[in-house]
Amino acid sequence: MRQGTNRIRRAIGAAVITFTIGGLGTNAAAFDGVVEKMVFELPSYTTVGGETIANVRIGWESYGTLNEARDNAILITHFFSGTSHAAGRYRDDDPKPGYWDRIIGSGQAIDTDRYYVLSTDTLVNLNANDPTVVTTGPATINPGTGRPYGLDFPVVLIRDFVNVQKALIDTLGIRRLHAVIGASMGALQAIDWAAAYPDRVARVVPVIGGAVVDAFLIGWLDRWAAPIRIDPNWNGGDYYGGPRPLAGLTEALKMVTLHARHWRWATRTFGRQWAVSGADPRDALDNRYAIEAWLDQAARARAELADANHFLYLVKANQTFIVGNHGDLDAGLATIDAPVLLLPALDDLVFYPEAHAEPLRERLSRLGVSVEFTAIAGDLGHVNGIAHIDRVEDRLAAFLARPGL
Amino acid sequence: MRQGTNRIRRAIGAAVITFTIGGLGTNAAAFDGVVEKMVFELPSYTTVGGETIANVRIGWESYGTLNEARDNAILITHFFSGTSHAAGRYRDDDPKPGYWDRIIGSGQAIDTDRYYVLSTDTLVNLNANDPTVVTTGPATINPGTGRPYGLDFPVVLIRDFVNVQKALIDTLGIRRLHAVIGASMGALQAIDWAAAYPDRVARVVPVIGGAVVDAFLIGWLDRWAAPIRIDPNWNGGDYYGGPRPLAGLTEALKMVTLHARHWRWATRTFGRQWAVSGADPRDALDNRYAIEAWLDQAARARAELADANHFLYLVKANQTFIVGNHGDLDAGLATIDAPVLLLPALDDLVFYPEAHAEPLRERLSRLGVSVEFTAIAGDLGHVNGIAHIDRVEDRLAAFLARPGL
Repeated sequence: MRQGTNRIRRAIGAAVITFTIGGLGTNAAAFDGVVEKMVFELPSYTTVGGETIANVRIGWESYGTLNEARDNAILITHFFSGTSHAAGRYRDDDPKPGYWDRIIGSGQAIDTDRYYVLSTDTLVNLNANDPTVVTTGPATINPGTGRPYGLDFPVVLIRDFVNVQKALIDTLGIRRLHAVIGASMGALQAIDWAAAYPDRVARVVPVIGGAVVDAFLIGWLDRWAAPIRIDPNWNGGDYYGGPRPLAGLTEALKMVTLHARHWRWATRTFGRQWAVSGADPRDALDNRYAIEAWLDQAARARAELADANHFLYLVKANQTFIVGNHGDLDAGLATIDAPVLLLPALDDLVFYPEAHAEPLRERLSRLGVSVEFTAIAGDLGHVNGIAHIDRVEDRLAAFLARPGL
Repeated sequence: MRQGTNRIRRAIGAAVITFTIGGLGTNAAAFDGVVEKMVFELPSYTTVGGETIANVRIGWESYGTLNEARDNAILITHFFSGTSHAAGRYRDDDPKPGYWDRIIGSGQAIDTDRYYVLSTDTLVNLNANDPTVVTTGPATINPGTGRPYGLDFPVVLIRDFVNVQKALIDTLGIRRLHAVIGASMGALQAIDWAAAYPDRVARVVPVIGGAVVDAFLIGWLDRWAAPIRIDPNWNGGDYYGGPRPLAGLTEALKMVTLHARHWRWATRTFGRQWAVSGADPRDALDNRYAIEAWLDQAARARAELADANHFLYLVKANQTFIVGNHGDLDAGLATIDAPVLLLPALDDLVFYPEAHAEPLRERLSRLGVSVEFTAIAGDLGHVNGIAHIDRVEDRLAAFLARPGL
């Protein structure tokens, strides 16, 4: 991680501006589709749990221009396997833009002609080996030992992700965010922002998320993580410099990928097709179906960029989430001042709307918090919130344009 | 497995009657709550795939008395992690009866005063190390080598389970089954019985199942199996005589357990309780929530009795399932003569009613097959079909009592 800046410079062939606390650089380029990765550094950060981490670094990106009043900033918070790359391209020939590119840009719902949009890599970001990601976590060199932290890295909470983002916002001189918007784990960060710093958030948009991770999802997150611990290369988290636990990590990513989708998508996309023509799955234990081979291929590519310990720390951050960190949901929600736009996905099998967004709407209403609700349709399950976010763009644009409190 | 008969005799302290093909023994005891395990043997069985297995043995049980016309037999087919133990107790002090004990017995929906109820262990039964289970699969000694088959055991299909059951039915002189009833993987066997041997089945009751395993479930079954393959003790399936892949198998069983339930159950049962009082999950990576500890404990006990390779073969049998084995659903269903009672569970997250029972009802109607449909309510998801089967007992009793075609 220490070489993050150099690695990014090499990878994206663009200038990298490094901010350090107390010294604010300038993001020269207005959003024109070519995105620069920047690095935000904190000499020291103390977690909610009271552990101090030296030299915290996270990557961030921005699209659009911060106005003079510094009151047009929208923060985008990312999902479990996501990064700060929410929109735009790193190079003109970049094959894929950021994950919400279709709603962030000039004239889009999150209009970069109007808003200054920024997005950060979280702590313990999954994609620690992605050269465009900057994060601090178990794979980072512990300055105290000169070796990666491994499991000596402290447990971090969603609130810790928020607090590091807040330090960046403070550094940028942004007094109040126009909105915080995030999908899935990003929704947890968004609503926690509104609960933790009510005077700093004017609007909040939790997409495919909730205000608390329930027992079923706690159990599933543990299932996601389990293959990593079974992989002998994981070695109790101490694998840096040796073979990586890629088999376990790949399996963990397959589980995330499948869990985030839906049977309608699977039937439409694969049906009962075989992985290899002529290799009937009935003929041999190793002959497989197309969906199995697809999951394998999709997860293998992602595993190369990911870190297994970071995965485990993200699982922990999600499992422990309850808005406000009180252990009492109403107490956490009651501090929210910002109007809330809930955007769940129909048929979401991770954050079931009936378990999360629907009771959350009722609770917020009862607590006197302004709340709106629109479900995103599609056959992708949880992933509707990423892939089909444009289906609610008018609603989102109207919510963002409405005068705040 | 070769010592199955002796092991059972030891375990249940009761006479064991071994049937061999061509020689029909007698099941002396009428159903009085103490169940005898019996063994059915086939000197040779040739799979649908054309492989011949010597000396196939499966366990079976019966409750009630076969009438003189031998036309009052109901076959119960078991689920993925189940056994032939559908009802009754092996000893008077047995703490737990068979899984459907509440609907099988004197005066119950499946009335043992009226019907002769029988139930078999499948081939490649998961619980190969359970002393009350008799099965033939990878853990069985291959008579050709004197060592367990391991992955040399041929792939077997749901139809192979059915065919071995049919050999038992033939041996018992039962010309036509009054009904075949099964839950989950048992539902696949039940409907395949009706499609494969339409003149041998008078009624069919698929509970929490379907007529085809869809792409999403194919993908999930592969997720269930994956931790076994990652466990280094699995050793490519060659672990007999060495350490067993218990970590992978335990994780596989945790996944089955969680997948078969529902978020309502999880919230009601565990909420966000910690596994250990005073050990806040936020304080350490290894501090856990109650649901995680419960899954661990439940699965560990089951893993002791299970065999990892048998798990993989069961996954294969389920993934490859399409009724009739034609690869064409309508062609498979069109051969069914028996009236069908579909009993899906509301909120089933394994066989989603909208993906399985509901379209199946429509297809059967369109094909002119008599079909009825009642959903089982409850907050247990898929497991509603086992734990809350008594909620549809009147409907089931009426269906069974109605004159056949």
